[in-house]
Amino acid sequence: MTDLAAITAAAARMAGHVRVTPLLSAPLLDRMAGRRVLIKAECLQVTGSFKARGGWAAISALPKGTRGVLAMSSGNHAQGVAFAAAAHGVAAVILMPSDAPAVKVANTRAYGAEVILYDRATTDRDALAAGLAAERGLVLVPPFDHPDVIAGQGTVGLEIAAQAAEVGVTSADVLVCCGGGGLSAGVAVALEDRAPGMRVRTVEPAGFDDMARSLTLGVAQRNTQATGSICDAILTPSPGKMTLPVLQRLAGPGIVVTDTQAQRAMAAAFTHLRLVAEPGGRWPWRRRCLIPACPIR
Amino acid sequence: MTDLAAITAAAARMAGHVRVTPLLSAPLLDRMAGRRVLIKAECLQVTGSFKARGGWAAISALPKGTRGVLAMSSGNHAQGVAFAAAAHGVAAVILMPSDAPAVKVANTRAYGAEVILYDRATTDRDALAAGLAAERGLVLVPPFDHPDVIAGQGTVGLEIAAQAAEVGVTSADVLVCCGGGGLSAGVAVALEDRAPGMRVRTVEPAGFDDMARSLTLGVAQRNTQATGSICDAILTPSPGKMTLPVLQRLAGPGIVVTDTQAQRAMAAAFTHLRLVAEPGGRWPWRRRCLIPACPIR
Repeated sequence: MTDLAAITAAAARMAGHVRVTPLLSAPLLDRMAGRRVLIKAECLQVTGSFKARGGWAAISALPKGTRGVLAMSSGNHAQGVAFAAAAHGVAAVILMPSDAPAVKVANTRAYGAEVILYDRATTDRDALAAGLAAERGLVLVPPFDHPDVIAGQGTVGLEIAAQAAEVGVTSADVLVCCGGGGLSAGVAVALEDRAPGMRVRTVEPAGFDDMARSLTLGVAQRNTQATGSICDAILTPSPGKMTLPVLQRLAGPGIVVTDTQAQRAMAAAFTHLRLVAEPGGRWPWRRRCLIPACPIR
Repeated sequence: MTDLAAITAAAARMAGHVRVTPLLSAPLLDRMAGRRVLIKAECLQVTGSFKARGGWAAISALPKGTRGVLAMSSGNHAQGVAFAAAAHGVAAVILMPSDAPAVKVANTRAYGAEVILYDRATTDRDALAAGLAAERGLVLVPPFDHPDVIAGQGTVGLEIAAQAAEVGVTSADVLVCCGGGGLSAGVAVALEDRAPGMRVRTVEPAGFDDMARSLTLGVAQRNTQATGSICDAILTPSPGKMTLPVLQRLAGPGIVVTDTQAQRAMAAAFTHLRLVAEPGGRWPWRRRCLIPACPIR
C-alpha cells in the first residue's frame, strides 16, 4: 500500500528532476464558476503530464543493475517512463499503438526510448509485452497499479496541499481526471494527511465511468465500450486493484463529464490561463506540429 | 535610475502577490534550435503577462493617501495596473482603445478598474488622460518609462538568473520581447549583477525595430508606421528615455523577427510547452471566449 511516507520519499527522489507545477487562478474563471477555482497546471510538468512523476518514482526505486524497463502507453506514460529511464541510464522499450499522437511518439523517441508501434486491432499487446520482457530482461512499469507509481503521482497532492494553503485554501473538492485511478489515489493519500479538509473527486468521461460506478456500488465495474471519447488516454476499462480501495475510503462521489464539457474546460484553460490542456491524451485540434522545421511530420 | 537594489526591493514588495513563473524546456525544442532553450513562461503570470510586476512595483511604492491611478493600455499593462490597484485599495482608471481584445477589457473590469474606451482614430489619448488625471487627482502609471515599473519588470531577471543556475546555465543570450524596453532594461540590470554571463537581446517585429536601430546608431530612432504587425502590444513608436541608455550599456544587438517567425514561435510553445503565447498583445486566432457561459461576448 502507498502511504504518506512513500509519497514523501518519492518527492525526495524527484527533487530537481520533476517540476513543482504552479497552482493557477484567474478572476473570470472564479466568476464563471461562482466560486474560487485553483488549477494545478500539471500539463506544464516535464514530458507534458503528471506521468513523469510516477515514471520517476518507479524507476528511481528499481534495484541497481536493472537492464531496462518496458511500458505500454498511448503517450503520456510513455514519455514519463522514457524521460525517467534516460535520466537513470536505464534502457526503455515503449509499446505504443500506431495511432498514438505523432508528437507523443516523437517526444518518447527524443528521450531516447525504443518505441515499438503496434496495431490496436490486430496485436495482442500483453502477449507482445510479455515476450519482450522475457526476451530482453525488462521490468514492466505499469501505468497505475503499482505502489511506486501511485506514490509518484501522489506528490501532486503534497504540492496542492502546500500551494493551496499559501493562498488560504484548506477545504475543497479536488477534481482529478481518472483513468485507472493512480493519480486520484495518490493525491487522496497525500491530502488525507496534509489537507484533511480536501476531498478527491474522480472525473471521468461519460460512457467510461467505471470508477464512478465502482465507488457507488462498492465493487469494481467495467466499461462496456473501449473507445468513443476525446478523453482517450483515460478510457481505462476498469479501476485498478490497488487504486479502488484507496478511493473507496477517501474519495467523494465520482463526477462524469461529457466531451463537450471537457472541451469547454479546455477552452477556458486556453482563454483564461494560457494553458493548452488536453482532454486526456489526444489533441483534438491537430495531430501534426505546425512548425515547418519541426521533426514531427 | 533603476538599480539592483530597486529590483530586489520590488521583488520583496511583490512576494506572495506576483507569481514566480516557471522556466520551461522541451527536448524537441532543443533539437529544433540546435541548442539548449529555456523559456520563461511569463504568460502564466497573474493577469497573463509580466505587466503585473511593473504595476505592482509602481503602485506599492505610491505615497499613502493616493486617491487613484491612471493607465493607458491596449490590455496587458491595463490588467497589471488594475490588479495591483485593487489589491492596494486604490482606484484605477484605464484608458483602452475600443478595438482592444475583449478578453482583456473584461479582465481589466473584473479586477475592479473603471475602463474608459476611446476611438484610436478620433481621440487625443494624452489629452483625455491629462484631463482625467487633473479632474480626479489620479497618478499616471506609465507602461515603461518609470523607475519603479522598470524595477518591477526586472524581477523577471532575478528569477531567470536563479532558475537557470539551478539547471546549470549561467551563460546565455536572453531574448526579450521589446516595446518601449521596460522589461528588457529591467532584466538587463538584474542580469548584470546576478548572471553576468547572460546578455539581453531585444526582439522586435519587422518594421517596428526602433530599439534595434537605436542600439546600432546610438541615438533614439522612431518607427515610420504605427500599426501593421500581429505583435500589436509592442509597437511602441520609439525607445523609452530611461530604457535606451540602460540597453545601450548592457544589451547585445537587437533582433528583428517577421510575423511568420512570431507565429512559428507561438506554435512551438503551443505544441511543445502547452503554452498559449501571444505575439505581443492580440490573440490572432480568436477575439471572443469560446465558452458558452463566459461573460466575454
